[in-house]
Amino acid sequence: MNDTAATTHLLAATLAQRLTQEHVADIVETLNDQDDATIAHVLAELPFERAVEVLDQPELTTAPAVMALLPDQRAGALLSAMAPDRAADVFQKLDEDTRARLSGRLDRQTRSDLKKLLAYPEHSAGSIMTTEFVSVPSNWTVQQALDHIRRVERTRETVYAIYVLDTVTHRLVRAVSLRRLISGDPEAPVESVVPAHKPICVTPETDREEVARFITKYDLLAVPVVDAEQQLLGIVTFDDVIDAMIAETTEDVQKLGGMEALDKPYNEIGFVSMIRKRAGWLSILLLGEMLTASVMQFFEGELEKAIVLTLFIPLIMSSGGNSGSQATSLIIRALALREIALKDWWRIALRELPTGITLGVILGAIGVTRVTLWQWAGFYDYGPHWMLVAATVGGALLGIVTFGSLAGSMLPFALKRLGFDPASASAPFVATLVDVTGLVIYFGVAAVILSGTLL
Amino acid sequence: MNDTAATTHLLAATLAQRLTQEHVADIVETLNDQDDATIAHVLAELPFERAVEVLDQPELTTAPAVMALLPDQRAGALLSAMAPDRAADVFQKLDEDTRARLSGRLDRQTRSDLKKLLAYPEHSAGSIMTTEFVSVPSNWTVQQALDHIRRVERTRETVYAIYVLDTVTHRLVRAVSLRRLISGDPEAPVESVVPAHKPICVTPETDREEVARFITKYDLLAVPVVDAEQQLLGIVTFDDVIDAMIAETTEDVQKLGGMEALDKPYNEIGFVSMIRKRAGWLSILLLGEMLTASVMQFFEGELEKAIVLTLFIPLIMSSGGNSGSQATSLIIRALALREIALKDWWRIALRELPTGITLGVILGAIGVTRVTLWQWAGFYDYGPHWMLVAATVGGALLGIVTFGSLAGSMLPFALKRLGFDPASASAPFVATLVDVTGLVIYFGVAAVILSGTLL
Repeated sequence: MNDTAATTHLLAATLAQRLTQEHVADIVETLNDQDDATIAHVLAELPFERAVEVLDQPELTTAPAVMALLPDQRAGALLSAMAPDRAADVFQKLDEDTRARLSGRLDRQTRSDLKKLLAYPEHSAGSIMTTEFVSVPSNWTVQQALDHIRRVERTRETVYAIYVLDTVTHRLVRAVSLRRLISGDPEAPVESVVPAHKPICVTPETDREEVARFITKYDLLAVPVVDAEQQLLGIVTFDDVIDAMIAETTEDVQKLGGMEALDKPYNEIGFVSMIRKRAGWLSILLLGEMLTASVMQFFEGELEKAIVLTLFIPLIMSSGGNSGSQATSLIIRALALREIALKDWWRIALRELPTGITLGVILGAIGVTRVTLWQWAGFYDYGPHWMLVAATVGGALLGIVTFGSLAGSMLPFALKRLGFDPASASAPFVATLVDVTGLVIYFGVAAVILSGTLL
Repeated sequence: MNDTAATTHLLAATLAQRLTQEHVADIVETLNDQDDATIAHVLAELPFERAVEVLDQPELTTAPAVMALLPDQRAGALLSAMAPDRAADVFQKLDEDTRARLSGRLDRQTRSDLKKLLAYPEHSAGSIMTTEFVSVPSNWTVQQALDHIRRVERTRETVYAIYVLDTVTHRLVRAVSLRRLISGDPEAPVESVVPAHKPICVTPETDREEVARFITKYDLLAVPVVDAEQQLLGIVTFDDVIDAMIAETTEDVQKLGGMEALDKPYNEIGFVSMIRKRAGWLSILLLGEMLTASVMQFFEGELEKAIVLTLFIPLIMSSGGNSGSQATSLIIRALALREIALKDWWRIALRELPTGITLGVILGAIGVTRVTLWQWAGFYDYGPHWMLVAATVGGALLGIVTFGSLAGSMLPFALKRLGFDPASASAPFVATLVDVTGLVIYFGVAAVILSGTLL
């Protein structure tokens, strides 16, 4: 062992000792600031149960890298002891070599659990569910169920939702909460305390966003995942759903900003991946913006005759982009919250039209005031036809803000209708769309108002 | 009763009957599509307990309006029976008249609960906590605690977290989960099953975002709210936190889109409020954009000499805005998730600089290609100095994308440092900021490259 390794080792041992006392979430926070080798050392030094607890935290984002650095036997034992959903998550992110190496070190149950869990599509209920739930046959008494819960409590992710299975077919028939169960007569059958209704279920293929919606809507602690034969495969608990919701929101915000979703925390993503995620959309948007150059070429004659028109191009274009990105974010969020549905598009259009016109009138008035004020105060001379220039700016702002609000609000619907994620209608995307049409509107208004004078 | 009223009444009775069987969340969904008068009728027809359950759902957004339409006595009884946190929420949104009228109809306990809850600032833990928790003195046995839980189960929002209070001072000393409690020896004291550590607590003034962070980090079902004397005032449960998280995200997305947060669902906000929330930022941004007109005026001489420069203004400006809004959304989200902190600003700057340069080189290359291609294919003649024009466009894109990435990533830090919400650094805000400087960069690059030829 060389000097650096010895120091790391010592540091790890000290850390491990200090960490034994702390809350697991705080341990993870401390570990996340260390490099992979140190974390691996700490996990080797921590008591086994404690190490499992730490690895079970999804917040420990470096778990796969660390797992690869641990001795195979310890890594295998840790994976086998972890919650199956988390183990599957970590296992999936191992490189192929490590995966092959560790696969033989897992116990049989874990191997079969992982195989099943990893077969489900990404972001599905199956991929985030845990198989550590409590189920009891429907002919048990309340006391039997409670005794069973006491026995298995330490190995279950939650014991607050108890799933009652048909004694013969093993189908899921009811779900009962622990609070109801402990309030029941111990000698009575479990069936006497269950609710009158079948539980809300999802299938393993259900998207995690949909699962989050169920948990939120029905205020559930967990939602059962069943197959087509109503066999209980696992459960998704509310804390997994919160994690999923945070991840979905991050994706949406990043897309709204005009880039691909990162998949990893900002600090952990490599330089090349970062460029790739960002350059793609920027390039596409630049290609789109090139249409503005073509539009400008088309109106070059007008520009040469009235150079004063160029002065307001940035101002007018950006107002269109701004009103468009307002409307888009508003609609994307309302769609995500299911406040509005795809079929509501025309109602939204009927609402955004007067809103856009009103906003356009306000901005148009500000624009006219600006030109008038500058002319009057002598900051700039817009020439003898300055009133017509002011009218052009005002009229163009009215038209562009109206168009921006309408286009911005309809774009998420259009994307959704075409099968894309409406959140892809990023602010930059809308701005680009509105820029090109905005120029056409501007020169159109100018042609009408200034024809015979400046043009 | 006239004909319309009779029809509403009949419809309400039918609805109420049908709804008695359904899950409360589904009832709320059905009711949300009805007008206030119908909902009031349904709530009058539903069995009392059921009506309370329905009103307890935060998703019933029209509850305050409906409450005002109910007979005073029923409204008062319903408010008294509702969960105190939800009752406070509804009560707060009543108009002053109704509030005064109903206040006398509340039972004494509810009146004092509401008074306390309503005194806490908006979005604080105090404003979303419930006072319906389970607490036991520390000298009780496990069996005594369980018996108590069985008795109060139906009137508590959650019984899964049990708060252990000092017998003399009534201070909160420990929190224990029901799963631990039922696994304990019934004759042993409660203190034998509690964890070794004091529970994670918040104060009534803690912001709900911070509460959400605790619940998520420590995977809690509920977090206790205590005053300075460690007296337990209430608890915030995970489902309230999920609702709060969704509301915060909505605010963030709306701010990111360049508007004030709406506070209400899209469908429910009035026309005038909508205009007010949107026109403010649009007008401020327009005033900011007016600087672009001033910059353009300043460079008017250059524009007149080389009208070809104007063709690329929209394209170059928008590339700066796009790269800026990418960087901003990325940093806002990383700050919200606490992946990075205020003090990390220089590390981010050191990272965004090479990222921005690389993105700038890519976009610059595309820009040069565009000019070269058009010249070569004969789509447009940029004159004898077309290669210099291409170099100007490329150089300006490099400079602006670099500047945009850097400015966009630093803006949220600057806002946070100044005490504003970093999420106010909306995509349109960044775009406006970058537009003005972008023009200066463009004309600066042009002056260097084209001096002596076109300029």
